Amino acid sequence: MSELRKDPIIGRWVVIATERKFRPSDFSNPQEIQQEAFCPFCPGNEDKTPPEIFAKRTGNSVPNGPGWEIRVVPNKFPALRIEGNLNRKGVGMYDMMNGIGAHEVIIETPSHIKDNKEKVDIKDYSLATMLNIIETYQIRSVDLKKDPRFRYILVFKNYGKEAGASLSHPHSQIIATPVVPKRVKEELMGAKWYYEYKERCVWCDIMNQELDSGKRIVEQNESFLVIAPFASYVPFELAILPFRHSPDFDNITQQEKERLASLIITIFKKLSKGLNNPSYNLMLHTAPCRYPHPGYWQTIEKDYHWHIEIIPRLVKQGGFEWGTGFYINPTPPEEVTDFLKSLVV
Amino acid sequence: MSELRKDPIIGRWVVIATERKFRPSDFSNPQEIQQEAFCPFCPGNEDKTPPEIFAKRTGNSVPNGPGWEIRVVPNKFPALRIEGNLNRKGVGMYDMMNGIGAHEVIIETPSHIKDNKEKVDIKDYSLATMLNIIETYQIRSVDLKKDPRFRYILVFKNYGKEAGASLSHPHSQIIATPVVPKRVKEELMGAKWYYEYKERCVWCDIMNQELDSGKRIVEQNESFLVIAPFASYVPFELAILPFRHSPDFDNITQQEKERLASLIITIFKKLSKGLNNPSYNLMLHTAPCRYPHPGYWQTIEKDYHWHIEIIPRLVKQGGFEWGTGFYINPTPPEEVTDFLKSLVV
Repeated sequence: MSELRKDPIIGRWVVIATERKFRPSDFSNPQEIQQEAFCPFCPGNEDKTPPEIFAKRTGNSVPNGPGWEIRVVPNKFPALRIEGNLNRKGVGMYDMMNGIGAHEVIIETPSHIKDNKEKVDIKDYSLATMLNIIETYQIRSVDLKKDPRFRYILVFKNYGKEAGASLSHPHSQIIATPVVPKRVKEELMGAKWYYEYKERCVWCDIMNQELDSGKRIVEQNESFLVIAPFASYVPFELAILPFRHSPDFDNITQQEKERLASLIITIFKKLSKGLNNPSYNLMLHTAPCRYPHPGYWQTIEKDYHWHIEIIPRLVKQGGFEWGTGFYINPTPPEEVTDFLKSLVV
Repeated sequence: MSELRKDPIIGRWVVIATERKFRPSDFSNPQEIQQEAFCPFCPGNEDKTPPEIFAKRTGNSVPNGPGWEIRVVPNKFPALRIEGNLNRKGVGMYDMMNGIGAHEVIIETPSHIKDNKEKVDIKDYSLATMLNIIETYQIRSVDLKKDPRFRYILVFKNYGKEAGASLSHPHSQIIATPVVPKRVKEELMGAKWYYEYKERCVWCDIMNQELDSGKRIVEQNESFLVIAPFASYVPFELAILPFRHSPDFDNITQQEKERLASLIITIFKKLSKGLNNPSYNLMLHTAPCRYPHPGYWQTIEKDYHWHIEIIPRLVKQGGFEWGTGFYINPTPPEEVTDFLKSLVV
């Protein structure tokens, strides 16, 4: 079983993932991602994944066979496992617990390769497909939150080799963790401090500021604003913010889902056109499970605001960034905004 | 001039580096690192770098000509510039300041390519060369700390394309920043909290714990311990810790420098042999400038402990890591230790 171990200095939890184990000697001949001769996510190969957790199906198709529009399965090589108890313990001065959690794969569409041999991705989706995906994020997130062992549910997507994707069939992932991850805690703390000082949500303030200046607004519709953040840490970092203040993605309305689907397709058409189909990570940041916790995150309903981060993987981070958390971004977000606004898709 | 911008939520400072600017349209055809036909760091090409700040020279060679053993020059495309005032200001709700700092390159040796066409690196150095480098880190660090505008001096090295290196001639870098970077502040806070609770230094405790268990000790000599940290966030993460408690690398003794030089060469011979010459980042973490600050880092003499981090770049980080700061490490540090101990170099 995997182990969760805590850094004794900065408090970061790390998964030592024994089930996706690399032996030390494996690194001397690093395997590149194989050009997949066989895709376990394509229709007809349903028996090559663990049994499905959820699917949207057409006609009278049956579970774990073809006929699906979207399909959720457990990750075959999970970072965290659903079975077992948390079993927190000390090892000398260190802290650890069992690698309990959930790790699911959302196979976004049956399509994999287009007629021109190019791989399918968000830029190619119909509104219906993208809406399916957003609805599935919501359905799985609501379901996983019922498990009292989990403190956080992260929805994310890795596209392309530079972004850490190991299979090219379009998919997202969900990981449920038994601790609130460090980066999320930092956002929660930052939002809380801002609220204590201003009695306003920091993301609501950011949206007002951005609407006022107009310099970093990439796209918008009636429900969402897309900005290139003022302190973007990498080129083409984008944030999608809902206008309606809500700490929790789970409460997204039908109309918001439709508008979000349309906006995401537009954004990825532009990124693909302007950056020649870049690798990217997409992350959904939402409130932790079961807030407000007694004595903890008391003002979260007012101070936290769910949002989506998009990080194209265009530059490599060196020792300066890793050593300090102090990023050097060679491309001002105002120029990114002008560039993306100029593209017609 | 570059700008320093602060993230309004998590407080991270970012350099928007206009002088090393990529235009948004540059990313659609990402340039690979060119196979350098010409190396500005090789002897004879001294006029292709800005004038040298420091060098160790042999015989009666003159500055900015050949005859050096090690040479320090300003970075030609600096992230931060030495000239000007800090000029902190608000931009609406946001915080920024001018990109003031220093960015120097330490050209570690005149040698670049070996007879077998392989590129030179630490694994190939004599003790004298490695000692020169450590002494130069100390000399430049002590000198840069005299500038009252700087709060932190980071010494680091990027080796190989995966680690963000843009030139292959062996070199390290030093960046002086006008703010204490986020990751360093986390270490300082973590160390302070630990000290308040235990009245002991957390790194001293870690060394005792590791000496006791023996499971994660990769190398040691009379002055230094090399461990694969308990909560390693990437495979083959290594930490070099001095036995003598000291917050500040600047106070390293001659004997310690000699022992550190010898240890570093051994470590890199092993990493190169075991991992087939991997890309890596090396970072020196030391106390910020001019501690104790009134009302700030009061116990730093007792709670902080300088150290070196080595991060081989073997796996790619995906959206999970970026989205949460919660790393999945597929290789237990205990196995890394056994593997490295088994190698004969």
